[in-house]
Amino acid sequence: MQDALARLTAYWTEQGCLTVQPMNTEVGAGTLNPATFLRVLGPEPWRVVYVEPSVRPDDSRYGENPNRLQTHTQLQVVLKPDPGHSQELYLGSLAALGIDVAAHDVRFVEDNWASPALGAWGLGWEVWLDGLEITQFTYFQQAGGRNLDPVSVEITYGIERILMALQEKTHFKDIEYGRGVSYGEVFGQNEYEMSRYYLDDADVDTNRQLLELYAAEAQRLIEAGLPVPAHTYVLKCSQAFNVLDARGAVSTADRAAEFGRMRRLAGEVAGLWVARREELGHPLGSAAPQAPARPVARPAERDGARSLVLEIGTEELPPAECRAALTYLEQQIKNGLDGTRLEHGEVRVFATPRRLIAVVADVAAGEPDAVRTVRGPKVAQAYTADGSPTPALAGFLRGQGATADAATEADFNGVRHVVLEKHEAGGAAADVLAPVLAKVVAGLRGAKNMRWSDPQLSYSRPIRWLVALWGDDIVPVAVGALAAGRQTRVLRTSATPRLEIASAETFMETIAVNGIVADPEDRGELIVTGAQDLVYPDGKIDVRGEAALIDQITYLVEAPTPLLGTFDEAYLELPDAVLTTVMRKHQRYLPVRDTDGALLPMFVTVANGPVDVELVRQGNEAVLRARYEDAAFFYRADRELPLDALRARLARLTFTDKLGSMADRAGRIAALAISLADGLALRSATLDRAAELVKFDLGSQLVTEMTSLAGVLARDYALHAGESRAVAQAVYEAELPRSAGDARPASLPGALLSLADRLDLVAGLAATVGLPTGSSDPFAVRRAVLGLLAVHRAHPALAPLSLTDALARAAELQPVPVSAATRAACGDFLAKRLEQSLVEEGHQVERVRAVLPHADRPSVAVNLLHQLGEVAGNPDFVAVAEAIQRCRRIVPDDVAAGYDPALLKEPAEVALHEALAGVRRPAEPDLFEFTGAVSRLAGPLSTFFDDVFVMADDPAVRAARLGLLATVRDLGAGLLDWTALR
Amino acid sequence: MQDALARLTAYWTEQGCLTVQPMNTEVGAGTLNPATFLRVLGPEPWRVVYVEPSVRPDDSRYGENPNRLQTHTQLQVVLKPDPGHSQELYLGSLAALGIDVAAHDVRFVEDNWASPALGAWGLGWEVWLDGLEITQFTYFQQAGGRNLDPVSVEITYGIERILMALQEKTHFKDIEYGRGVSYGEVFGQNEYEMSRYYLDDADVDTNRQLLELYAAEAQRLIEAGLPVPAHTYVLKCSQAFNVLDARGAVSTADRAAEFGRMRRLAGEVAGLWVARREELGHPLGSAAPQAPARPVARPAERDGARSLVLEIGTEELPPAECRAALTYLEQQIKNGLDGTRLEHGEVRVFATPRRLIAVVADVAAGEPDAVRTVRGPKVAQAYTADGSPTPALAGFLRGQGATADAATEADFNGVRHVVLEKHEAGGAAADVLAPVLAKVVAGLRGAKNMRWSDPQLSYSRPIRWLVALWGDDIVPVAVGALAAGRQTRVLRTSATPRLEIASAETFMETIAVNGIVADPEDRGELIVTGAQDLVYPDGKIDVRGEAALIDQITYLVEAPTPLLGTFDEAYLELPDAVLTTVMRKHQRYLPVRDTDGALLPMFVTVANGPVDVELVRQGNEAVLRARYEDAAFFYRADRELPLDALRARLARLTFTDKLGSMADRAGRIAALAISLADGLALRSATLDRAAELVKFDLGSQLVTEMTSLAGVLARDYALHAGESRAVAQAVYEAELPRSAGDARPASLPGALLSLADRLDLVAGLAATVGLPTGSSDPFAVRRAVLGLLAVHRAHPALAPLSLTDALARAAELQPVPVSAATRAACGDFLAKRLEQSLVEEGHQVERVRAVLPHADRPSVAVNLLHQLGEVAGNPDFVAVAEAIQRCRRIVPDDVAAGYDPALLKEPAEVALHEALAGVRRPAEPDLFEFTGAVSRLAGPLSTFFDDVFVMADDPAVRAARLGLLATVRDLGAGLLDWTALR
Repeated sequence: MQDALARLTAYWTEQGCLTVQPMNTEVGAGTLNPATFLRVLGPEPWRVVYVEPSVRPDDSRYGENPNRLQTHTQLQVVLKPDPGHSQELYLGSLAALGIDVAAHDVRFVEDNWASPALGAWGLGWEVWLDGLEITQFTYFQQAGGRNLDPVSVEITYGIERILMALQEKTHFKDIEYGRGVSYGEVFGQNEYEMSRYYLDDADVDTNRQLLELYAAEAQRLIEAGLPVPAHTYVLKCSQAFNVLDARGAVSTADRAAEFGRMRRLAGEVAGLWVARREELGHPLGSAAPQAPARPVARPAERDGARSLVLEIGTEELPPAECRAALTYLEQQIKNGLDGTRLEHGEVRVFATPRRLIAVVADVAAGEPDAVRTVRGPKVAQAYTADGSPTPALAGFLRGQGATADAATEADFNGVRHVVLEKHEAGGAAADVLAPVLAKVVAGLRGAKNMRWSDPQLSYSRPIRWLVALWGDDIVPVAVGALAAGRQTRVLRTSATPRLEIASAETFMETIAVNGIVADPEDRGELIVTGAQDLVYPDGKIDVRGEAALIDQITYLVEAPTPLLGTFDEAYLELPDAVLTTVMRKHQRYLPVRDTDGALLPMFVTVANGPVDVELVRQGNEAVLRARYEDAAFFYRADRELPLDALRARLARLTFTDKLGSMADRAGRIAALAISLADGLALRSATLDRAAELVKFDLGSQLVTEMTSLAGVLARDYALHAGESRAVAQAVYEAELPRSAGDARPASLPGALLSLADRLDLVAGLAATVGLPTGSSDPFAVRRAVLGLLAVHRAHPALAPLSLTDALARAAELQPVPVSAATRAACGDFLAKRLEQSLVEEGHQVERVRAVLPHADRPSVAVNLLHQLGEVAGNPDFVAVAEAIQRCRRIVPDDVAAGYDPALLKEPAEVALHEALAGVRRPAEPDLFEFTGAVSRLAGPLSTFFDDVFVMADDPAVRAARLGLLATVRDLGAGLLDWTALR
Repeated sequence: MQDALARLTAYWTEQGCLTVQPMNTEVGAGTLNPATFLRVLGPEPWRVVYVEPSVRPDDSRYGENPNRLQTHTQLQVVLKPDPGHSQELYLGSLAALGIDVAAHDVRFVEDNWASPALGAWGLGWEVWLDGLEITQFTYFQQAGGRNLDPVSVEITYGIERILMALQEKTHFKDIEYGRGVSYGEVFGQNEYEMSRYYLDDADVDTNRQLLELYAAEAQRLIEAGLPVPAHTYVLKCSQAFNVLDARGAVSTADRAAEFGRMRRLAGEVAGLWVARREELGHPLGSAAPQAPARPVARPAERDGARSLVLEIGTEELPPAECRAALTYLEQQIKNGLDGTRLEHGEVRVFATPRRLIAVVADVAAGEPDAVRTVRGPKVAQAYTADGSPTPALAGFLRGQGATADAATEADFNGVRHVVLEKHEAGGAAADVLAPVLAKVVAGLRGAKNMRWSDPQLSYSRPIRWLVALWGDDIVPVAVGALAAGRQTRVLRTSATPRLEIASAETFMETIAVNGIVADPEDRGELIVTGAQDLVYPDGKIDVRGEAALIDQITYLVEAPTPLLGTFDEAYLELPDAVLTTVMRKHQRYLPVRDTDGALLPMFVTVANGPVDVELVRQGNEAVLRARYEDAAFFYRADRELPLDALRARLARLTFTDKLGSMADRAGRIAALAISLADGLALRSATLDRAAELVKFDLGSQLVTEMTSLAGVLARDYALHAGESRAVAQAVYEAELPRSAGDARPASLPGALLSLADRLDLVAGLAATVGLPTGSSDPFAVRRAVLGLLAVHRAHPALAPLSLTDALARAAELQPVPVSAATRAACGDFLAKRLEQSLVEEGHQVERVRAVLPHADRPSVAVNLLHQLGEVAGNPDFVAVAEAIQRCRRIVPDDVAAGYDPALLKEPAEVALHEALAGVRRPAEPDLFEFTGAVSRLAGPLSTFFDDVFVMADDPAVRAARLGLLATVRDLGAGLLDWTALR
């Protein structure tokens, strides 16, 4: 290992990097070392390589976990400014380590890095070596909240992982550290003891005090204008925070506050540093910006139609960006061509992670000539009495460089003007296409964009080359620092990674011959059929189920090479969700199932290009083995503990500082669920037991590792512990729905727990941190409310439950007071979410608003909404609605229902009074019943309006008549918001 | 520079060292990294190399000082166990750096390392490259208070210094760090800002709190049995302490307490580590102890007398040890030979830093045979009546393996015994000498001894080879791991560093031919004459004045090569004391003076062996230049400030936590000196001004650097600031005497300030930390008291001053109460010191004790002591003394002087009474006067004793007579302690 560090250091030193030492205070990553964090700021060039033992208290495992260390070794490289070929330099470093990059599957997989605590982010990749993440590769965009110009490339190697792979070790302790000495022998005790410290023995109170002292000292040093020592104290803050976090002593609110403070401090440090370097006159100089490119010489005149090809060569694009760019490219090329007079054939677009391609058939060699009419002054104002040109006409002609005899006349909007007919020669294809293509390239934008060393361009990943050919000619495109040429790039591992393209017509064939499958559909096909062939006849790829994953893989490779790997059957003891989560989410492997849908101990991974299949397979298998070993380690450990013990651990997890521990929260959920059940007469033994257990799996190690498995593992562990299937299911369902569109609890105990969970979250957070506004919603309160709505809607048995009542009950259980105003705000928030989701489901907004009075019982609201749809064409309902609306219009709002029948004399009003007496409002909101009941009023009401003058002179009579109509009006009160229906 | 680090790392890796990373918390030295501090403990072998950026807040200089950095780069190597040739390995590393070790003067200069805060120490050297300290080389003996077995070799390179020398830079910022990038460009801002932090901006209160939190966490982790994290917190303690220290916020008492705490913590950490490694079964194995040596085969029998030579080859011995070993060697060789029957000639001994040599002329080839008489039983008990042997005799004979006919008889103390005459053959020289020489080697001990890898030996430095020859033969000596042979070693840079010696007779010549000047006298002569020749005719070496230095140099080289160096005349602006202190103390250079005694801008250094003179001269000149540049930098900066500003800085220096700042102390000294002067009517304008200034130079940078110049620089700065010569002198003299034998203040203002200084120290410390007991005296209270005595004795004008009264006044000025008991203890302590020093000056202890009643006025006591010497033979005094003693013997202690003369009737008693009436005690203690006055009593007293029976029957008469004698007795009271005179 020390040899590997020395080789990498020597390699990068040869590339002009300085070597510095690790930071002499604990850091979580090499990025935090001032040799990165401060040096990436400002204009000074900087190239550095250093080793950084990186401390992650959270990753402490007593040295027992084969892949997880509280201190792992990073080798950090910073190249500032971006040299333009850092990926190639990086591959060179792997070769220097003795890795045959052509035989292995080395991939750049989208991974955007952000450190909220440092106000820093960048775009880049994880580098995978046969599926193993060995390096983080980032184009640093911001640090301390400041835009970086020039941009730095940051390359961070995970040394232990690389060494485990190279030395084929299954436990980090077995890495050969130096001659005859293992890593475990050198660092084993350190791992154990520091893990003990971080997980068990660090004094929480001491570390809290340290954190405060460090932060205060950082602030003081910022005020003293000393960024360097201030930075060390920010780092110390970060470490103290991480220690507290590892000890489970950080609540979500603490975290947000602490990140905010660190971000602010880091920002001020960065600002001071920049100012100070400026003041020192930038001792290391300023990086010269890259010069804009000059286009190639314009080609000779040509005849006939030829194909046009534009290739935009990039560094590995994220799949989603790549897909989006296809649409953009097609649209923009078409628009661009439409803006010219060039004739052309079909436009086709293709994309791989490293290139966007547009091919246009039969593009004419030039535009036809054209005549353009230029409008001059009105004829009436063009000539003097003697027929000679007025100054207006003379000026026009002079401006156009024409003489009066060239002028003719034409009508514009019926007014006669002097005009000139100008003959315009058509442009040659090269001349016309160059600006069009340049605009396409310059206009590329991703969802998240970055700068690199280009003076002009900004995109999702750097654009590194352009091919633009019309026939045999280079289209003289120049954008930013790039000039189009005929050189393309194929696989980096190819014998000739750069190729000259003879002509537009041979482009696609040339790259295809060199292994690039440019068409995503072709790649998808190759992946699916390749994978299926590999697993045939025993296994099956669930193509439909894995569609999203397959689509993603399609955009991760240019030359798909599916490989079959296997894993030890023993791992099948792990829950399906664990196995597939690891495969899909972490590794982008396709799971393989037998005909019954059961998982088989195999997977398909898709390498890029002609790798050494056996080598890559072994590498991927080792990675999966390590991940499964991790999971199995936790799984076994978790299952060895009784559920109570797992549940007891919740006391160590802070929920928020004001709302207590997770155990407190689970207790509240249990109490609330049972209280709701009592109110609905839905109490059961299953619910009682499930309530005792709810959320217990958050205390397990595997859920701590893979939070998306909360609930899933609760079910598994509960069954394992001998709980009934119903209880296990309820504990699982308490977590549902986990996202929009996720399954909802099928059982009532599950539904009640799910509601209670979400009600508790909303009530507690609304009272302490407030309801979310804008896009920030760190506690996912919005998702919780949507869950409430979904669960309520899913169970008719829950229809009687008012969510606002339930929320009030949840509020009572909180350890903090929840004011009436807060509860009201929660009700509004809930109503807003219901409105929004119903509208998103396609309902008319007016009708949605009409049923919102029932937002506290979403299933009722939804039912009404559906009824509303059905009764909309019902003449009775229309009549009723009109009647009610009419009453609303006539009767002032402050007139209450009710009247003295004795004052009613007119037959029409008496008839209405009598009809009213027979109307019974339905017990539950029901439009059909309501319509049936109220429709009998239609006739009397109509007669009333015809015959009776409401605003009688006698005030008593007037009041009675208004009261009568108010009574009609109020028949619909509470059923619908009639105002919403206009 | 990064290249140098890489080369050294590569070199040591080739020697089997692991490479690890610097510590990720601030450390003051590579030693503190657990890769040293913990790994040197226990039996496991360990070889490691690493870089350690070492933080010394105290050395912060804002990056302005050319040689001083708050963070310097160490390269640390640990070799465990000691491989036996680590010096040679080290020289190999210099060669790997491109240093021609034969051309340069590379020296190993005694430097023992100790870290009280870590309970760690070792013996070793600074390595000098042409006078520049570039490496610390230590045989680590203890860590955490635990003996180390095996011993580790610790090599610590000071990288910046080495690089400055190699790159010929005069400022660290100019070092080329990497290609085209200077050290200053990379680290300059860091130096400036961290200096700001350490010197100006670190919050004292925050760092105090951090220190306490760290210490508590360390303690907690020790209790949890986790040495590794506990160690990191000990390191954090150390850093926080160093920060406080740099901020001047650490008092001497704080320091002692903090060191105590850290030592205790470090000790517990070490203990835990050892236990834990034991528990883990020593994963790295156990270093095999070196096997004891087997002697060479015994040589054949020889005739005739030959020379004997014993050479004990060592690594560089400290000069004092080397000198002491000469005496030991001569004594032990002689004693050893005396214990044999070998005839031999003269014994001569020689020593160089690397060898101790004994040469014995004409050692016989063997011992003569001898007859030994063995005593048996008494004859009376030897034979039975029939003349046959008794069992006693039979047993004796059996025991001696003899028969009865061999027995003869002889007298022992006049009793006849049976005896046997045993003929003993003489041993061959080799056989007889081997155990003698082995004992000499094994018995070597220094003042401070160390272990290395030898299973048996322990000495000041490792013993690496033995040559023992008698004539041509190897004397088969074996001690520890060493067997004597004929191979010696000469200069390491010699073409043949190891040589075979043909015979004892050619030994001295062989090594002489190879450049070794074995005789210290010869070396001294070479140094003196060489140096004198070099500076002739302009300069002079003050041979007598520099005798101690010359003697030291003599023992620093084996092959003295004096070189003349020069320095810029401009530095002569610096005070002499600055220049010579640097030359002598730091560099062991001989200063050169002109005939008037003024310093010349040159120096003589003495290299070892045939170096490249020009190269070594330049190197040494550069070192001196750097040191003078440092001093001049501070000197100029100091002199730019008004004295008040320097004085004001004392407020920032803590004296002790309870006794306030140095400014407080200086204020007390001033007040006390003036009060004492008032009491003695010695007040003067000079004193008043000097009192205002006293100790102001402690606020200067140069005194902070070179504390031994306190006072000297006060005088210089005061004169520069325009103070009168008398004031300047008084401020200087306030610091005198600085050590035993140092000059005492010549002026009264100086003497008063000096007294006041010491009185303040004693009173304050006695009241707060107590007076020193045992050997520990961190505040040098003993020295202060000795100073008090010396100053008092030096000035007759101070004779009236009682030091105990003065101490009481000093006590009143303290910010803490000083109890009567404490003041009394101080008086006793002072008396004890006076007694001790007077006895050490050669005075009879009885007489010293007799004058101790005047210990509070030492000059009075001393005067009396001298008088005592003179009057001792004076019959009058003898008579007086006897009379007083006689009275003391007769009169019980509780009888007071005084009597009723009316009761005296006998003529003799009346005569005595009358004689007494004429006696006048001298006003001041004066034995001559006293003797003159009292001697007239001799006659009457004698008559009294002859004639008068004191114990008369009449109690009144008896009382009167006793009272009369008590009056005589008390004549001497207070003058001398007569009891002490017997």
